[in-house]
Amino acid sequence: MSADGFLKVKRQGSWDILSAAAQKELVPAQFDSQLQYLTYNDKYVIDYKFSDVDCDTAIEEFTTLLEHLDAVGLHAEVRAGYDQCLLIFVKAPREILGNAVYKSRVRDWLYGTVAEHPGGGGQTIVDAKYEAEDLLSMYHLLTWPKELGGAGIAPGYGRFKNVQSMFPLHNPRTSGSLLRYLGKRVILGDADFDRIRDLFGPKTAFYFAFTQTYILFLFFPAITGLLAWAFQPQYSLLYTILTGLWCTVFVEYWKLKEIDLSIRWGVKGIGSLKTDRPQFIYEKVIVDDAGRTKHYYPRWKQIARRLVQIPFVLAAALSLGALIVVVVAIEVLISEAYDGPHKRYLEYIPTALLAIALPYISQFLENIAATVTEFENHRTADAHEWSLARKVFVLNFTMQYLPIFLTAFVYHPFGDSFVPHLERVLHYVLGDAAAKSMDVVPFHADLDRLQREVIALTVTGQIWHFGEEFLLPLVKEKLRSWYRDYRTSHAEAGTLEGIVQDHPEERAFLSAARSQANLPPYDVQVDISQMVIQFGYLALFSPVWPLVPIGFLINNWIELRSDFLKICIEHQRPAPVRADGIGPWVQNLAFLTWLGSVSTAAIVHLFGRSVLKEVYSKGSGWWTLPVTIVVSEHAFLATRAIVQYVLRRIGSEQIRKESDASYTRRKKYLDELEANKSEMLGLGVEQRERRKSVLMTAGNKFWTRQVEDGKSLEVGVQLIQVLRKAERDSEGGKGSGKDMKHE
Amino acid sequence: MSADGFLKVKRQGSWDILSAAAQKELVPAQFDSQLQYLTYNDKYVIDYKFSDVDCDTAIEEFTTLLEHLDAVGLHAEVRAGYDQCLLIFVKAPREILGNAVYKSRVRDWLYGTVAEHPGGGGQTIVDAKYEAEDLLSMYHLLTWPKELGGAGIAPGYGRFKNVQSMFPLHNPRTSGSLLRYLGKRVILGDADFDRIRDLFGPKTAFYFAFTQTYILFLFFPAITGLLAWAFQPQYSLLYTILTGLWCTVFVEYWKLKEIDLSIRWGVKGIGSLKTDRPQFIYEKVIVDDAGRTKHYYPRWKQIARRLVQIPFVLAAALSLGALIVVVVAIEVLISEAYDGPHKRYLEYIPTALLAIALPYISQFLENIAATVTEFENHRTADAHEWSLARKVFVLNFTMQYLPIFLTAFVYHPFGDSFVPHLERVLHYVLGDAAAKSMDVVPFHADLDRLQREVIALTVTGQIWHFGEEFLLPLVKEKLRSWYRDYRTSHAEAGTLEGIVQDHPEERAFLSAARSQANLPPYDVQVDISQMVIQFGYLALFSPVWPLVPIGFLINNWIELRSDFLKICIEHQRPAPVRADGIGPWVQNLAFLTWLGSVSTAAIVHLFGRSVLKEVYSKGSGWWTLPVTIVVSEHAFLATRAIVQYVLRRIGSEQIRKESDASYTRRKKYLDELEANKSEMLGLGVEQRERRKSVLMTAGNKFWTRQVEDGKSLEVGVQLIQVLRKAERDSEGGKGSGKDMKHE
Repeated sequence: MSADGFLKVKRQGSWDILSAAAQKELVPAQFDSQLQYLTYNDKYVIDYKFSDVDCDTAIEEFTTLLEHLDAVGLHAEVRAGYDQCLLIFVKAPREILGNAVYKSRVRDWLYGTVAEHPGGGGQTIVDAKYEAEDLLSMYHLLTWPKELGGAGIAPGYGRFKNVQSMFPLHNPRTSGSLLRYLGKRVILGDADFDRIRDLFGPKTAFYFAFTQTYILFLFFPAITGLLAWAFQPQYSLLYTILTGLWCTVFVEYWKLKEIDLSIRWGVKGIGSLKTDRPQFIYEKVIVDDAGRTKHYYPRWKQIARRLVQIPFVLAAALSLGALIVVVVAIEVLISEAYDGPHKRYLEYIPTALLAIALPYISQFLENIAATVTEFENHRTADAHEWSLARKVFVLNFTMQYLPIFLTAFVYHPFGDSFVPHLERVLHYVLGDAAAKSMDVVPFHADLDRLQREVIALTVTGQIWHFGEEFLLPLVKEKLRSWYRDYRTSHAEAGTLEGIVQDHPEERAFLSAARSQANLPPYDVQVDISQMVIQFGYLALFSPVWPLVPIGFLINNWIELRSDFLKICIEHQRPAPVRADGIGPWVQNLAFLTWLGSVSTAAIVHLFGRSVLKEVYSKGSGWWTLPVTIVVSEHAFLATRAIVQYVLRRIGSEQIRKESDASYTRRKKYLDELEANKSEMLGLGVEQRERRKSVLMTAGNKFWTRQVEDGKSLEVGVQLIQVLRKAERDSEGGKGSGKDMKHE
Repeated sequence: MSADGFLKVKRQGSWDILSAAAQKELVPAQFDSQLQYLTYNDKYVIDYKFSDVDCDTAIEEFTTLLEHLDAVGLHAEVRAGYDQCLLIFVKAPREILGNAVYKSRVRDWLYGTVAEHPGGGGQTIVDAKYEAEDLLSMYHLLTWPKELGGAGIAPGYGRFKNVQSMFPLHNPRTSGSLLRYLGKRVILGDADFDRIRDLFGPKTAFYFAFTQTYILFLFFPAITGLLAWAFQPQYSLLYTILTGLWCTVFVEYWKLKEIDLSIRWGVKGIGSLKTDRPQFIYEKVIVDDAGRTKHYYPRWKQIARRLVQIPFVLAAALSLGALIVVVVAIEVLISEAYDGPHKRYLEYIPTALLAIALPYISQFLENIAATVTEFENHRTADAHEWSLARKVFVLNFTMQYLPIFLTAFVYHPFGDSFVPHLERVLHYVLGDAAAKSMDVVPFHADLDRLQREVIALTVTGQIWHFGEEFLLPLVKEKLRSWYRDYRTSHAEAGTLEGIVQDHPEERAFLSAARSQANLPPYDVQVDISQMVIQFGYLALFSPVWPLVPIGFLINNWIELRSDFLKICIEHQRPAPVRADGIGPWVQNLAFLTWLGSVSTAAIVHLFGRSVLKEVYSKGSGWWTLPVTIVVSEHAFLATRAIVQYVLRRIGSEQIRKESDASYTRRKKYLDELEANKSEMLGLGVEQRERRKSVLMTAGNKFWTRQVEDGKSLEVGVQLIQVLRKAERDSEGGKGSGKDMKHE
């Protein structure tokens, strides 16, 4: 590993100290020597939990598991885990893993994912190019169905329902050195994403590549935002247009970058290589015309099941929306109209209650979403994951953006007319006694409310999120492991160490494995989702507070690195599955940009005090708003078309490389073809004669008349002269005889 | 040819008589026996005209031409043509043509257009599957540059500037039988398009497939239109929505059908196989990293040149638009406000003048468009053709739709306010004397004007077009050939027959070739353009007169067949070039559908007397129009997304076939791979032992502890039992000793 070189760098910044601490977290010093020579590319851990079943069932299930592993030739070592678990350490013998990797490459070639055949034959054993390639084949050996040469283990499903998880072990040396390295690099490049890919696979690496691209792009709105804040009026039209353009360029650029990276990593169009999920329900197995075994599930049922998501999404979004509307209404009422005692505290109660309740409600809805998605019965894991991601996006969209939409497009323009109604309702509800304490203050919409809200949701939201996502699990895990240590050191009965004693040599390894078995799996969708939602604030509400991008920029710079650390120490190492991009999130980005063209235009129209107002000098009635929106939206669509065209013309480096490579391949092939053809075109006398004789005997004499060498030329020249002469003669008024006869 | 079978059908309808007449046109009876055994797949005719150069230059150019043909091994026979022309009949020897076809197939495979390698090696000679395949290779042998193994002949360009045209000969037997057959088939299917493809190549066949698909779809608006006309109020909202939906489904369906056919014909993504146009200007020839010879032309210059089209298109559209605006204004003025003498005639003068002038103006602008497109310096012929097609579309769009747009969105809503101004201007211009004769009639917009205009432009337009496109050239050609016959029969001096006497055996063949040399080439873009413009009337103005689709339906049924006849007798046989669809016209269709969602909504909003008016009960002010448009446009976008999703799920037959075929190919490959691997997975005792010993010596003892058969199982079962017991004990409150030690 060339990464070791980076460990020698001695510059000690705050990041170094943090990452040194993390390194220590990854590899406790006392175990360092034990773990030093371990390989991580060919090992997998299966966590089998038998606390929910009786002893006989447990033994039976365990036996089945081992048989499945044995059937594909995997070697298993069994050790005890925490909390009524068995940890089964699986290792693939070199010849099996090497061949699996080889076959995987052949399959990639067959499906057109990579262009060149890897060479070799059925028994070829190859070395993986990087750790994740081996681990991917390990993953396939374990999870793929028998027909495809796998053990068919589906954690949590069917007869493996008590298999809690199945994960590769973290490689603390590589992770640690990469972590230090990432801390030192200001901007990550493709080579850095390659290293992340080598460790965690393309799907995770795509998240980092996306975030880095986003960070780079953020510099533009951060700078223009600062300038707009300093020199432009609030709700600057210029800044809005620039940011809208920026959003478009960013989304279109990323689409290209995604393709670029997917070619670089040889995963373009990898979706076609995915196998059925074990959870996929089918009615029968059919063999189609092409001899392909298919798990058949009627299309109309599939569509009917998918349709279920529409009422769910609507109901969830609406109820969430209604809740938010009510809370906002109460809050507005208290803050604007109520003037009695404890106003300061009362004002914050609804929002605080909402803030506390929202994560639970959201978790609840996401659980239903997961159930609905399960019911939809998707064939591949990708389709399943994407469908879930789409639902989560709608929920997040409602939770995050609705309050701002309400403030901007309901509270401000209509507040004057409906807040008094609300007040009257409140009077009625509270009764006359309580109502005495309320002054009926004449209502005026608070112009700064929109800005306050955006700031609260973006800046404080980001900080809160960082704590919740990164620090909280860290603290929890610390506490849990401290408690375990405490019990162990006090040698209490019932602890694992009290029952089973590890071999001293294995202690470090087992300790790492056990604690990793207790970590949650990593779901990259959550992290991508967070970035996309953040982008949404910019796309939808950029003119409200132009300093937002600066906050995002700082946050994301940290986030990128802390996310890497998070994967290393707070999650099980993810299976290095492949994907050719960030999936449905590209569509979501495009959707947010589109919606932004409407929303920012409307905000500037309603709140801006500049050009637009003068354009509609006659009447600033409501009818001008739809016109603004139509103009802005179509300007956006036209801009997008232009940006797409330009970017496609500029193209990407990898696409060019690919086309160069395929040109070379074709050229070589055609040259070889040409080489042993050239003598044929030599047109030797012999061949000409042969051809002539063929023409002669062809029955039709037309083609034989000028078959002798030079005859066509001779006849042609003669014809030119004759026809010329005739023309001149006819111009000269003279008739001419027949100059040329057939021969 | 199985087509001969169709000739036996004796049913005599009017079409039969027509097509029999056409057949006679194609093969005059007296030559029938001579042409009977001719093959058309391996012949090409080059028409060299030397009237513009002196005799020496002509001979030199002609010699060069023959040398080029000779260099690739083609055989040439020279005969005289009409009007100072030489006809060079080119025939490819079997081994050269067969090998060219083979190499073309290999190239298709290399470029991924077809999936299977054709087999064979450098000297393989194959038979073409159909006539057009041979002719395509003939075309490539003639036109491709030397590096690609062609003769590099570029008619009308460089040293071949006097080569007037280069065309394959019409195959009268096949064309005739196909023509009869098409007349008898009510609806053409894929197999029929195949036959057209076999004769004229995929590009032309795509036009027929598109038209047939369009005809089939037209049944829906024709029926709903009839119902709407009978039972719905004018400007029916329901009919408008149905037609909008229909447009969307049609366009999306055609996109799929296009892919389907392109797979069927093995031309999917054929664009990547195209070579540079000979007219392409480059600054230097560079050899890039991949060893590819490239004609380098700086990108910025390319972009700069392309930008020229923007001012041209704007200027052309604007001036054309201004002209139409003026004419319409004058017409309105005369018809509505003028009430003096000769009103009946005066009223029609401006429109009549415009109708006469428009074809010339349009031709003039199209010529400029061709020049501009030439200047744009496109690399491939496709790009060039498409760029021109786009410009022509804009011009046609302006000419065809602008008058209706003006009537609908200017004359009607604003007529009341601006027509009086116009009148005043007229008074001023004419002076007081003339103005006396004019009554100032109070102006009211004529509500039927819109409908009259749509009917005039669609129905009469279609009939006029048919005459202009089909009958006029026919009459012209008849007259021309009659005149020639007349001169010949009177044996006047200066006629070809007066100078050169044909061999009697050749007379039929040469007569056909000479008359074909004088025909114009066929440009499929013109025909497609006509269909798309017709579709535009439906998409943009459907609510105005719901009977329009019936007219279109009848017109197109005839058009489809008359276009085939037109290609056969009024044009040179087109080179069977390949394309994977109807090119840029798909985008134009999509654009028209989109614009239609705005335009039809606005028409119904402004003219409809139904639901919409009631929705906006408060004020039917102008502000409601943008709202209607926004709603309609987004409803359209949502509908389109749904239709796209549904159609993609339904998929196409060819796409399924292709995926089946590639599955079979992959399966076979993987099975072969598996076959000689299976013994490896046999897990014989021997191999297990070997593996064990490898594990033993690996240094790390962890993986050796349970390496014996069954040991993992034993240990695991033991662990389950021990941990279970410990759990029960701990629940029972009893401490337990250490039950299990490491071994």
